[in-house]
Amino acid sequence: MNSAVWYSKEGQNSDVVVSSRIRLARNLPDVPFPIRLSKETAQVVVSRIVSAVEKTGELTKYDFQFLDLSKLSRVKRLSLLERHLISPDLIQKSSGTALLSSTDESVSIMVNEEDHLRLQVMQAGFGLQEIYVLADSIDNLLDAKLKFAFDDSLGYLTQCPTNLGTGMRASLMLHLPALKRTGAINNVVKNLIKLGLTMRGMYGEGTEPVGDMYQLSNQVTLGISEKAAVKNLEDISMQLVNQEKTARNELRSSLSVQDEIHRSFGLLSNCRLLGSNEFMSLVSNVRFGVAVNELKNLSFADLNSLMFKVQAASICLEYGEETNGKEQNRIRADIVRKALGGS
Amino acid sequence: MNSAVWYSKEGQNSDVVVSSRIRLARNLPDVPFPIRLSKETAQVVVSRIVSAVEKTGELTKYDFQFLDLSKLSRVKRLSLLERHLISPDLIQKSSGTALLSSTDESVSIMVNEEDHLRLQVMQAGFGLQEIYVLADSIDNLLDAKLKFAFDDSLGYLTQCPTNLGTGMRASLMLHLPALKRTGAINNVVKNLIKLGLTMRGMYGEGTEPVGDMYQLSNQVTLGISEKAAVKNLEDISMQLVNQEKTARNELRSSLSVQDEIHRSFGLLSNCRLLGSNEFMSLVSNVRFGVAVNELKNLSFADLNSLMFKVQAASICLEYGEETNGKEQNRIRADIVRKALGGS
Repeated sequence: MNSAVWYSKEGQNSDVVVSSRIRLARNLPDVPFPIRLSKETAQVVVSRIVSAVEKTGELTKYDFQFLDLSKLSRVKRLSLLERHLISPDLIQKSSGTALLSSTDESVSIMVNEEDHLRLQVMQAGFGLQEIYVLADSIDNLLDAKLKFAFDDSLGYLTQCPTNLGTGMRASLMLHLPALKRTGAINNVVKNLIKLGLTMRGMYGEGTEPVGDMYQLSNQVTLGISEKAAVKNLEDISMQLVNQEKTARNELRSSLSVQDEIHRSFGLLSNCRLLGSNEFMSLVSNVRFGVAVNELKNLSFADLNSLMFKVQAASICLEYGEETNGKEQNRIRADIVRKALGGS
Repeated sequence: MNSAVWYSKEGQNSDVVVSSRIRLARNLPDVPFPIRLSKETAQVVVSRIVSAVEKTGELTKYDFQFLDLSKLSRVKRLSLLERHLISPDLIQKSSGTALLSSTDESVSIMVNEEDHLRLQVMQAGFGLQEIYVLADSIDNLLDAKLKFAFDDSLGYLTQCPTNLGTGMRASLMLHLPALKRTGAINNVVKNLIKLGLTMRGMYGEGTEPVGDMYQLSNQVTLGISEKAAVKNLEDISMQLVNQEKTARNELRSSLSVQDEIHRSFGLLSNCRLLGSNEFMSLVSNVRFGVAVNELKNLSFADLNSLMFKVQAASICLEYGEETNGKEQNRIRADIVRKALGGS
């Protein structure tokens, strides 16, 4: 893992917004969608995309690393999933798929997942506009070479109709401990649907929120411009960020809340065994504690890094792929304890 | 509370034996037992005993403080109970009762509880022989003045037949976290009954063990000398102490046990609210951690003091008798956190 990875940094509104992400789904015009591809044609698609990337001078600065996903162990693929570089689907099926990833992992291209090409740009904190501009420029560069499948009335063609149009999914990973505690989160989720947005767990569709982390995304891709979709998500999420901050201000003077924050810190900085679910719920309280200034000498960047570092596959990748569950819990406890200054 | 109180010290085998205690039940020969006493006669008994104590030159070094229990608030009496200076009975009924207590609270005389006089000597750690010798000498001094009710064939006469004979209850407060964890404690309790001993909770008869603390006492008072009873308790308890130490040695390398120890320390040194039951179970783990050298820079004496200091009535006595439950929990957390070096 690179020490300069994007998630080891801090961005705007990092107290609430863990990260921003833009993903564009694109397809080649003259090849069936990945689901219908033969192994050989899938390889051709991989080659065409890799070649387009390599031949685009403006992209050399990203120093894209190429990974043939079918040649990676399950643990290696799981670790890419944990870092949001590939989707859960590519854990099951990896044949004919590939990943191109920049050095800091902020820009990546998944080949032959649901669509031929999925371009993704990530950034710590609240920064949808910046990464949209970046994604759009890379999209244009690749479009010039690959001539993405596009229909004048429908927009970009994608395998799944829910992506048709912009092919864009813009999302924010939000830490919402206060809205969760007050129970307001339930209403928020309900209302977001009406606004063309959706809120889900940390790893997208069908996953449960852990550690008070919610992924907020645009739902509508058809009949709206990419810019308008980004603006819509940005406006609504800023409201949500402010709601969360207000709720935090109301909760911060509660002794029970302070107690929970400090207890969580006490457990994380002293434990000798730590499961990943327990870690997520405790680190959520600690993150909340840093935000309301109950805990000092800890940054959101530290906590973000830690969240990536102690995931199961990342631990296995560093300590051996055979590392079993209990051993992972011991290693996780050691990493976390040291990161929080425990003894 | 005095800083030189007996429980702020450390004694032999303090890792297992929190404290040793000898109690002698004695009665005046010419007065009915307390249960049948009029208010006036009860006062006469108090005066006779106080006068005997005052007139015994050898006892002046204890600088006995006299407390008319009927004049104390309920909280003050509860705090005496917490320090084992009076029995639970004297919380309900205090009329005509009194307490004489030495400066360090190690020697005390309860007047008109179940018997006219109950002499008690306490010491930190394992020290039954020493305190028996001390109790016996004070008993002799008082007997010379008060001529305790004694029958040549039965021994000392007491209100309850279970005390008849020696009138002595010798007991040890034992910390048995390892025997509790391995489950061996259940067999131990069963076997002790056959040996004429009994094991109960922290505050004696009818109380549940909290924080893995067990009170081990002699059961037999009739047909046995005081010395033989002390010797019997001493021999058996040393076996128990060794059993506990063996079990600790077996458990100390377990990562789950280490985890529990350090988590308990983490909670105690960080919490902002702390109930008394939770405190007892966490401090038990911490005490265990100090014994097996998982936790450094903490002494048994520190932990013993803390256990007395943060009991409900002791807190009320120091912070105001009106201090409610939540406020007590806040104060308890503050005291404990600071004592363990937390921030």
